[in-house]
Amino acid sequence: MHPKPSPDAATVHELSTPAVVVDIDALEHNLSTMAAVLPGALLRPHVKAHKSTALAAMQRRHGHHHFTCATVREMVGMARAGLGEDLLLANEVVDPDRLHELAMLQDRAMITVAVDSDATVDAAARAGIRHVLIDVNIGLPRCGCAPGEAGRLAQRARDHGMVVRGVMGYEGHLMAVDDRGTQQRDTLAAMDQLREAAREVGGDIISAGGTGNHDVHAAHRARTGVTEVQAGSYALMDTYYSALGLPFRQALTILGTVIATHEKWAVADVGLKSLGMDHGNPSIANHKVWFCSDEHVTFATEKPDDARTDHTGPTASSIRAPQPAVGTRVRVIPAHVDPTMAMHDSFYLVRGDDVLDRLPIDLRGW
Amino acid sequence: MHPKPSPDAATVHELSTPAVVVDIDALEHNLSTMAAVLPGALLRPHVKAHKSTALAAMQRRHGHHHFTCATVREMVGMARAGLGEDLLLANEVVDPDRLHELAMLQDRAMITVAVDSDATVDAAARAGIRHVLIDVNIGLPRCGCAPGEAGRLAQRARDHGMVVRGVMGYEGHLMAVDDRGTQQRDTLAAMDQLREAAREVGGDIISAGGTGNHDVHAAHRARTGVTEVQAGSYALMDTYYSALGLPFRQALTILGTVIATHEKWAVADVGLKSLGMDHGNPSIANHKVWFCSDEHVTFATEKPDDARTDHTGPTASSIRAPQPAVGTRVRVIPAHVDPTMAMHDSFYLVRGDDVLDRLPIDLRGW
Repeated sequence: MHPKPSPDAATVHELSTPAVVVDIDALEHNLSTMAAVLPGALLRPHVKAHKSTALAAMQRRHGHHHFTCATVREMVGMARAGLGEDLLLANEVVDPDRLHELAMLQDRAMITVAVDSDATVDAAARAGIRHVLIDVNIGLPRCGCAPGEAGRLAQRARDHGMVVRGVMGYEGHLMAVDDRGTQQRDTLAAMDQLREAAREVGGDIISAGGTGNHDVHAAHRARTGVTEVQAGSYALMDTYYSALGLPFRQALTILGTVIATHEKWAVADVGLKSLGMDHGNPSIANHKVWFCSDEHVTFATEKPDDARTDHTGPTASSIRAPQPAVGTRVRVIPAHVDPTMAMHDSFYLVRGDDVLDRLPIDLRGW
Repeated sequence: MHPKPSPDAATVHELSTPAVVVDIDALEHNLSTMAAVLPGALLRPHVKAHKSTALAAMQRRHGHHHFTCATVREMVGMARAGLGEDLLLANEVVDPDRLHELAMLQDRAMITVAVDSDATVDAAARAGIRHVLIDVNIGLPRCGCAPGEAGRLAQRARDHGMVVRGVMGYEGHLMAVDDRGTQQRDTLAAMDQLREAAREVGGDIISAGGTGNHDVHAAHRARTGVTEVQAGSYALMDTYYSALGLPFRQALTILGTVIATHEKWAVADVGLKSLGMDHGNPSIANHKVWFCSDEHVTFATEKPDDARTDHTGPTASSIRAPQPAVGTRVRVIPAHVDPTMAMHDSFYLVRGDDVLDRLPIDLRGW
């Protein structure tokens, strides 16, 4: 069931909460900024970060026609939405039924599947997948073959009659390294491994990177040979990436309603069932979050310590956040954008407090 | 869209993954064990823990006809499923539209709403809610009025013409205290506060507790006056509660498929989008979990340290977990049951590896 496409409220004060709210100006800033740094096919936006074909269509309007997916459901949804010009499943699948679903899409979409082992190459071939990319492990202990194995796997795939389009590697362990000099050095070392594997594999594609080091990739393409970056979080952002000082704005918040106030704390109806919690607690501007329960966030009604030492504002000792009244709307910033979006079935596009549109989060599930 | 009610696979080896799998024997053991300790109306099962009317119906067959909910969606779904004999929303709501939804249910279900402030009492009255419970803060910094305020709020509700059925208090800060003597002492102290408030409020209900201290409540009802316990996690369990040594078995696992193996680690397709992560990483029997990504769990293929010192099994140094092959099914135990269930749209009832049924998780969202 898709939510109705038109907004059912004029301002955020009329929305039922919790509600996913995306600021259109911050979103547009983020899409434009990224499209300037990595235009067109240099960016293959990762739809796992938002799970919305509506948002993917906006990324397409900014010039990016090729997309990255993490699940079969995302691949199927993107193809059905007419966004299947070039879809990469940057993940391994061995389930014959799911691979068959992917193979069935190949007449209406360009489908490429990552493979990293004999088992995944053979499973893709048996299902009739036509295009694969060799997934190479470049430091994150997850999927990906050893760099020295990539050429052999490519040959195995070609022996099966499949087209090998190139390589991908995800240096996920480097995304949040906040010493950017270290991050750059380690990214370039990882790309040396990936390029070495690419030489053995052949094909046109060297796909890597993410929001956290997209600018390193943009600056060093000549050296690394990377042809596309798989960034996703940049569109909506979260507190985890915002600590890196990237040129993207916080576009995503979860709108809540204050349902209880006490002398030292208040409670809003945004809990851990509406927030990705693997990166820790969410944030609320001017308030320190104490903890989340299933349907609640408890936050201090005193200013957090870091606000007290913010010398750009009023003198520290005079600051005390106003006690929010029951019924007040608050905006809660998730620590991790991807799982947060996956918990909701729709989001509201807003400008300030005005609600412009309601759009489905239609790529959830598996 | 509800998934089809009949199972689409004969064994777990044919299920698409990730998939929520509930062992029927462990579930039945848990339901029977709890029904023996807190029979009938002494337990008001909390449906937030599983979000499934099918599971609530099983709890009803074990003698519990009154249920606790955390969201309006849960209340509406339970009433529509014919499970509305006595539904308590153990949460505060001030949104007039959502309260109106609840009020509309009152002709077909017994609806009681928690209130803890002038604002929530007045909002319930304006919406035409007929029955309320005074929510009293007994130590967890979240909702609930100060115990000394409860009598005044009850009078305010009665002045509005509403029936005040009693009090509730949730000592959530005591659920996972693993020194059970301390837990008992602190639970009884919290119940002293709640009983004091109940004397001022009147009504028949004193509702409190949860899975973690359900036995303390069962043993001390004569002293505390508690009339019902709001436990939910006991039915399915998770690693967080299992540390307490309660008499419940782990019924819930998330079934995954191994998609990559390396010398020191393997990867299955159960990630943080299919697991509640607020209580930390999930567990896999005989393997140490390293970390979760959106769609992956990376786990060591060596035995974890604690297994090495398990003297009930083979000698420690001889143990090495077998390297799981790509395609092998693994069962991942979530650290927190409630948000895990909320991420999936259905679950499979199994006995061992046999799939018996597929049932909807139909109370998701808000």
